[in-house]
Amino acid sequence: MKTRSFLTVMALLAFFACNAQTPRSDKDAVLDNILTRASVRSFTSKAVEPEKVETMLRSGMAAPTAMNKQAWHFVVVTDKTKLKAIQQYESPLAIVVCGDTMKGKDLWIADASLASENILLTAHALGLGAVWTAVYPREETIQNVRKTLQLPDHLIPVNTIIIGYPAADPQVKDKWNPENISYNTYGGKK
Amino acid sequence: MKTRSFLTVMALLAFFACNAQTPRSDKDAVLDNILTRASVRSFTSKAVEPEKVETMLRSGMAAPTAMNKQAWHFVVVTDKTKLKAIQQYESPLAIVVCGDTMKGKDLWIADASLASENILLTAHALGLGAVWTAVYPREETIQNVRKTLQLPDHLIPVNTIIIGYPAADPQVKDKWNPENISYNTYGGKK
Repeated sequence: MKTRSFLTVMALLAFFACNAQTPRSDKDAVLDNILTRASVRSFTSKAVEPEKVETMLRSGMAAPTAMNKQAWHFVVVTDKTKLKAIQQYESPLAIVVCGDTMKGKDLWIADASLASENILLTAHALGLGAVWTAVYPREETIQNVRKTLQLPDHLIPVNTIIIGYPAADPQVKDKWNPENISYNTYGGKK
Repeated sequence: MKTRSFLTVMALLAFFACNAQTPRSDKDAVLDNILTRASVRSFTSKAVEPEKVETMLRSGMAAPTAMNKQAWHFVVVTDKTKLKAIQQYESPLAIVVCGDTMKGKDLWIADASLASENILLTAHALGLGAVWTAVYPREETIQNVRKTLQLPDHLIPVNTIIIGYPAADPQVKDKWNPENISYNTYGGKK
């Protein structure tokens, strides 16, 4: 009798433990991460762990690049004076994503941009908040970032991604708009 | 005795069923999807389901846009003649991602690029293969796509993402290179 009760409890426990995890599919996890990402501009003072910084950089460098030129360079900024000099928000971390004009000719903007989206998505997946703040093509902003980070001429800072632990839950924007879709020709319906 | 055996079997079954699922965290699913995505240029003839097309477009429009201008337009191409006219590979589907210069001034390239990376990642998550083929800034290619899809002047086709079910497992490129990272100043170490 005792063994039977024990086994019943074990079976029930195993059943509920299993259901409690309700593992969703990888596909759903990926889509949810894309659809719930939002721009975060307000952060706690908590530093971002170096492992998380590396994870974001690994994701960035997994983005496709035109003709595999990898026309990018990433500057990790944690120095407070430099952070203040290059961005208008207060964050413990910024990653400045640059295009490398020596490697990429005219396609470095795309290389840097795709890497940046991977970084934004990965920040969200890691429980961080982030926002792309534009640098290129504003000449004054480019010069300021270039001077602060001592960038050589062949690197063009495309953006400053500011990153940290979000101070509040950000509002997700619903940008879905079927008017922005055409089928086969401009204005063509499904 | 019979009940006990039954319960033992159930407990074991529940245990193994649970482990078989080895639900990984959402974070791991997201990272894995980013790190295992590869460019696919060779496809089966199987059409891409309309629900999957919509899922990719929803992901595209979930990307951040400069000052929320959403300076983008998406042309879904399934017409065989048009597909042949705008791309050098054979795929059942292409999504041409355009920047809208009326909405985005100088930041439409970034808007279109970030949406494109979301589309590429979503294609991968859905079991599809895809590759970004560049249109902008090549004037001749732009004119060809513009003519084929009857795009108005304010839309600039940034790329043609060709999509389909992969004909073979693509090779993932390892682009991780710590030399592409600086800390606080160009060339600065961790």
